[in-house]
Amino acid sequence: MRIDRKRLERSIEELGRIGATERGGLSRLALTDDDRRARDLMVRWMRDAGLRVGVDRMGNIFGERPGTGGPPVMIGSHIDSVPTGGRYDGQLGVLCGLETIRALDDAGVRTRHPVMLVIFTNEEGARFQPAMLASGVMAGKIALEDAYNARDRDGRRLVDELERIGYLGPEPCVPRPMRAYLELHIEQGPVLEEAGLAVGVVEGIVAISWSRLTIHGVQDHAGPTPMRVRHDALVAAAEVVTAVRRIATTIGGDLVTTVGHLAVQPDIVNAIPGSVALSIDMRDPRSETLDRAREMVDAAVAAACAREGVRYELEHYWRVPYTPFAPEVVDAVERAAGAAGAGYRRMISGAGHDAQYMAAIAPAGMIFVPSRGGRSHCEEEFTAMDDIEQGATTLLLAALDLAGRA
Amino acid sequence: MRIDRKRLERSIEELGRIGATERGGLSRLALTDDDRRARDLMVRWMRDAGLRVGVDRMGNIFGERPGTGGPPVMIGSHIDSVPTGGRYDGQLGVLCGLETIRALDDAGVRTRHPVMLVIFTNEEGARFQPAMLASGVMAGKIALEDAYNARDRDGRRLVDELERIGYLGPEPCVPRPMRAYLELHIEQGPVLEEAGLAVGVVEGIVAISWSRLTIHGVQDHAGPTPMRVRHDALVAAAEVVTAVRRIATTIGGDLVTTVGHLAVQPDIVNAIPGSVALSIDMRDPRSETLDRAREMVDAAVAAACAREGVRYELEHYWRVPYTPFAPEVVDAVERAAGAAGAGYRRMISGAGHDAQYMAAIAPAGMIFVPSRGGRSHCEEEFTAMDDIEQGATTLLLAALDLAGRA
Repeated sequence: MRIDRKRLERSIEELGRIGATERGGLSRLALTDDDRRARDLMVRWMRDAGLRVGVDRMGNIFGERPGTGGPPVMIGSHIDSVPTGGRYDGQLGVLCGLETIRALDDAGVRTRHPVMLVIFTNEEGARFQPAMLASGVMAGKIALEDAYNARDRDGRRLVDELERIGYLGPEPCVPRPMRAYLELHIEQGPVLEEAGLAVGVVEGIVAISWSRLTIHGVQDHAGPTPMRVRHDALVAAAEVVTAVRRIATTIGGDLVTTVGHLAVQPDIVNAIPGSVALSIDMRDPRSETLDRAREMVDAAVAAACAREGVRYELEHYWRVPYTPFAPEVVDAVERAAGAAGAGYRRMISGAGHDAQYMAAIAPAGMIFVPSRGGRSHCEEEFTAMDDIEQGATTLLLAALDLAGRA
Repeated sequence: MRIDRKRLERSIEELGRIGATERGGLSRLALTDDDRRARDLMVRWMRDAGLRVGVDRMGNIFGERPGTGGPPVMIGSHIDSVPTGGRYDGQLGVLCGLETIRALDDAGVRTRHPVMLVIFTNEEGARFQPAMLASGVMAGKIALEDAYNARDRDGRRLVDELERIGYLGPEPCVPRPMRAYLELHIEQGPVLEEAGLAVGVVEGIVAISWSRLTIHGVQDHAGPTPMRVRHDALVAAAEVVTAVRRIATTIGGDLVTTVGHLAVQPDIVNAIPGSVALSIDMRDPRSETLDRAREMVDAAVAAACAREGVRYELEHYWRVPYTPFAPEVVDAVERAAGAAGAGYRRMISGAGHDAQYMAAIAPAGMIFVPSRGGRSHCEEEFTAMDDIEQGATTLLLAALDLAGRA
């Protein structure tokens, strides 16, 4: 059983052209026109591969290769990207899933369990928040109503954008029976590259905490307002950014903390900032570490805002616990990596993935391939075809193992 | 000689409706459709007052009330605002200038020197930078070409917007002979209110320094990127914001320092900021203090960026020295304030004004009226009509003093 490396490479090239940036990256935010074009291409390829294609009420796309009986082995990922992101995050997993199905066809292999490809809507959370919105709805963790009412920065609702691009499907977005869920993804960190390995056998996903902070200062003129009377929202926000970084270095271990979004009002040279909104992203394999980090955020925000005499609202609005993957699936992935001849190690994912929600409703597992320089969510994102070939072969063999030959 | 308080109040109300915000403020950025509507209204009022109206190549609007001879006493200010700004900054000076002319007409007073009203384009610098762009061109301090090529955040050129709203006039934008230049403006600080005075006799304007800093970090995923390998542009920027505040408290005195604009790329929850752009505004009556503050900024930026391992570009792109006003004009304003029966004091302006550039080509002076709570560049901006009446009377009497009765 082999995958067709050339065919897979061509697919990556072709899909990567939709929303491509000048510097070799990808800007293909969820439910934009480019997302629609990418979906249309995927649906065409899925139909060409003989799959029965359906779309659910969150715009998730499913394509089934029939088996002789039982629930399907689902292989999935996403094709939306962050702004000025890369060509591998998400779509590589979808295309390796499609390649798995094409390779089964080439080999004339019939499986007991069906093999199903799924493309999840709005995984990145770059346009509509939170991330992994559609797999969250499917797993019953996010209400369909809430997902529909998520708005982008221009105030457009997710459901209206789904309808606009023609992917508000008829199938219910609910848990489906699955033999297993498998997802191949780039590592997005430096571990595999540093170790010189092609495949990561993922045992689980870190716990993630997202918070939003809004600071209300007093907007005023930057000239005639003496320092002694100022209440500058950005001065308080800067202290928070510094504190959020310090929390990670203080606690240490695997904890990572990031302020990725920060917006100033009115945001002009000669006005003291009246308000600032910012995001706080924190991740660690241990939930207790995140609890401790959140308490430190609470204290740091309170202290910074008291010092500057500004009001604030701090909301810890999203939290996912550590997600362990199913041992039988992790073992299947490990066997497959060995059979594919790939250098591999077991590891934990630092990024959330749709597999996280799927793990709540099915035995789930993931396969990582290396990210050059550990970089992702940027145009420089890159994974070598040699590594992709080993990862895709691992996916194929694991899927076949779990689906069983008919 | 008296001004008509009711008429002035009505004019403030009516002009203030164009670009009004729901919370009683004003958003009327330079060369927008609202700016055009406000200009059209002013031109109508100026023509109704019998003024000969002309527009120059920077869109500055001039209206002349003839005298018997000699160069005009020019009274001016601006009618553009910052986003979510107030109803007094700028337009109060223009309307008190118009009221001066109307009051001279009411009293049937003929003056030796003509009295001329001027409305300057893009004083705020909120849309096109730097601030006071059109008075700067008129004073020969900014090249017309550079001003024309200034672009707003959407990339639109100033000259194209001038043309679009119909205010790309035929008159050359060059120094004009003037008997004197007078400008009434809100103080935008707490000094007059704290002292319970109606009028500030302005002796000069602080020196101002504007800088822009761009920090280039490494954009990466906020999850799987260990803290040890991060180069976060926002972490470095936050240190700079803190340092800029500290410079003011360290040097003390009248120095004020502000980071008013800060923009993050890509600005999403789960990406390590790849780049940050921010502004630094510093003001002090003494140029040597600004020199020292700039050196401290240079050192703080270098240290913060070295610590985070990020590249940067720091550009001190705009600087105006301390501007002393002409003693004869300041004296005339002081005499007028006394004759108007206003409580007054001499003071220095912390904000830049078009008067700053006019001082380079004419004997210039300014009149301040109080800002409630010292606040400006915000919707809460407010000056009581009692104070406005005293300020406007001071302006009228000073203008008459300088123009001379025919």
